Amino acid sequence: MKEIRLASRPTGWPTAANFEIAETPVPAAGDGQVLIRNLYMSVDPYMRGRMNDAKSYIAPFQVGAPLDGAAIGEVVESRAEGIEVGAVVAHGYGWREYAVADANRVRVVDPAAAPTLSAYLGLLGMTGLTAYVGLLDIARFREGDTVFVSGAAGAVGSVAGQIARLRGAKRVIGSAGSAEKVRHLVEDLGFDAAFNYKDAPVRDQLRAAAPDGIDVYFDNVGGDHLEAALGSLNKFGRVALCGAIAQYNEEVPPAGPRNLGLAVGKELNLRGFIVGNHNHRMPDFLAEASAWLRDGQISARETVVEGLVNAPEAFLGVLRGENIGKMVVRL
Amino acid sequence: MKEIRLASRPTGWPTAANFEIAETPVPAAGDGQVLIRNLYMSVDPYMRGRMNDAKSYIAPFQVGAPLDGAAIGEVVESRAEGIEVGAVVAHGYGWREYAVADANRVRVVDPAAAPTLSAYLGLLGMTGLTAYVGLLDIARFREGDTVFVSGAAGAVGSVAGQIARLRGAKRVIGSAGSAEKVRHLVEDLGFDAAFNYKDAPVRDQLRAAAPDGIDVYFDNVGGDHLEAALGSLNKFGRVALCGAIAQYNEEVPPAGPRNLGLAVGKELNLRGFIVGNHNHRMPDFLAEASAWLRDGQISARETVVEGLVNAPEAFLGVLRGENIGKMVVRL
Repeated sequence: MKEIRLASRPTGWPTAANFEIAETPVPAAGDGQVLIRNLYMSVDPYMRGRMNDAKSYIAPFQVGAPLDGAAIGEVVESRAEGIEVGAVVAHGYGWREYAVADANRVRVVDPAAAPTLSAYLGLLGMTGLTAYVGLLDIARFREGDTVFVSGAAGAVGSVAGQIARLRGAKRVIGSAGSAEKVRHLVEDLGFDAAFNYKDAPVRDQLRAAAPDGIDVYFDNVGGDHLEAALGSLNKFGRVALCGAIAQYNEEVPPAGPRNLGLAVGKELNLRGFIVGNHNHRMPDFLAEASAWLRDGQISARETVVEGLVNAPEAFLGVLRGENIGKMVVRL
Repeated sequence: MKEIRLASRPTGWPTAANFEIAETPVPAAGDGQVLIRNLYMSVDPYMRGRMNDAKSYIAPFQVGAPLDGAAIGEVVESRAEGIEVGAVVAHGYGWREYAVADANRVRVVDPAAAPTLSAYLGLLGMTGLTAYVGLLDIARFREGDTVFVSGAAGAVGSVAGQIARLRGAKRVIGSAGSAEKVRHLVEDLGFDAAFNYKDAPVRDQLRAAAPDGIDVYFDNVGGDHLEAALGSLNKFGRVALCGAIAQYNEEVPPAGPRNLGLAVGKELNLRGFIVGNHNHRMPDFLAEASAWLRDGQISARETVVEGLVNAPEAFLGVLRGENIGKMVVRL
């Protein structure tokens, strides 16, 4: 079997040289374990942080060891009660063709309940839950709010914007990095307005798109997007700090928002979160999201890359913003 | 009577030339009004923002008109039911020797319940309530938290740090701008540690004072203090954004915290607030603060400047950090 290992830690932007494709024997399941053949794996911006040797909310990848991350696969050998061969499971051992996992580390999913199995990595997985929790629990979205989502054509952003629309936002505005993405947001996902942040200063474009200000900002980007949002936020505005992809590859930390002082007079609330501490919301989320999917009210476009050996390139593509919707690798 | 008017709007640091001392007739109380002889008035950092012609949570001062702000005085003429001549009232018409106010814009206070009348501008007034609300409601302080307060020898900071101590903080750390203030924090107010931010980088001094990190940051300063606090905050840390005195007089907005991205992984919550929207907490606060005062558990040092004509200089002194505790002007 093949697996992808961390060959070296990047400084700044990672490259293909930081990854190594290795051959290794297919492992055997022990007592209480299953052997999984991976079908899809996820590549996510947060993985960039794990390439650094830095203390964070999740352990760094180790040089010479396989990477890991969300994946979906089929059980091909089971020594665990209650999980049969042929079951489809979501788990955390991506970046490899086969994985052995303890039964309590996998979640059996229903292939019939999703348009494609990869949806369990995106809309119906941690990606969708991140959007749901960030918008509803962290930013405390309320019907009638005007919502701005950055990185809105990305995996999380595209779901966050659609949930805001479905839950009764007054206006949903998204930013993205290409004309094609902007078109996708408005025409396919039902955003009220969208702009290409490369066209003009975010501040000016956001003001034009939201002349009455915004109530909620879902931040996937940081940097100038966050500064612009602080300027446009209305009194008692709320910010879900979900990510800061603009900064992940910078060797020198970029300048922070110069207008954070506005948070005092506007009584803003900025709150960071990691979805892993909100798993208890998965049932609520799946109930709502499944209904939206069934009724065709939510769209889950994916960018699919073929083959494990192309996973590093898929991941680098996410960092460069080459995906529309969730980027997944089909093994 | 004398009153202080805004002569011109400052650019950067204000000076005495931005103020004008004017003579004007003592006004007469109309129906439902009282005439007040002011005894003490408050000078506060937030007034700097009102000198600019900028939209904010409170209207700007007008050039040629008297300034206003918290004051305490004695009723010398009453045409309002239920307020007798001789009553002592807290109100919002400072910067003048006499003021006329509608009855519903004044609050009768009990002179016997305070060590000095000026306490109703400080510990027992909006200053104390700001500290209480910021620490307990905004930063959601919990017993056992380690708390860092910037501007800790100032009016709000000195109360916030003491409330944290009295409510069972594990450790209370304060920053201030002189050796005398640092000594005051530790020896008089019972802070566990304090440092002079001018001695060395805040980041290094905070790390040394809080080797296990902090759980709550009460921010009166912004700038490098906020950046240092973001670095030291523990998982699920909370920040009350109360003020940013470091920035009020800057003509160019200073750099923001370069490490705000830490808020994601640490799941931090940063929340700005204005005490005016939390007046419902005044009874709870006064009940607790009065008991602390009576038992000698809380200290309310004041810096008192004599004479209305010296109010501009007192205000400029606050911006320069010349006060220890609340700065008030005795008329």
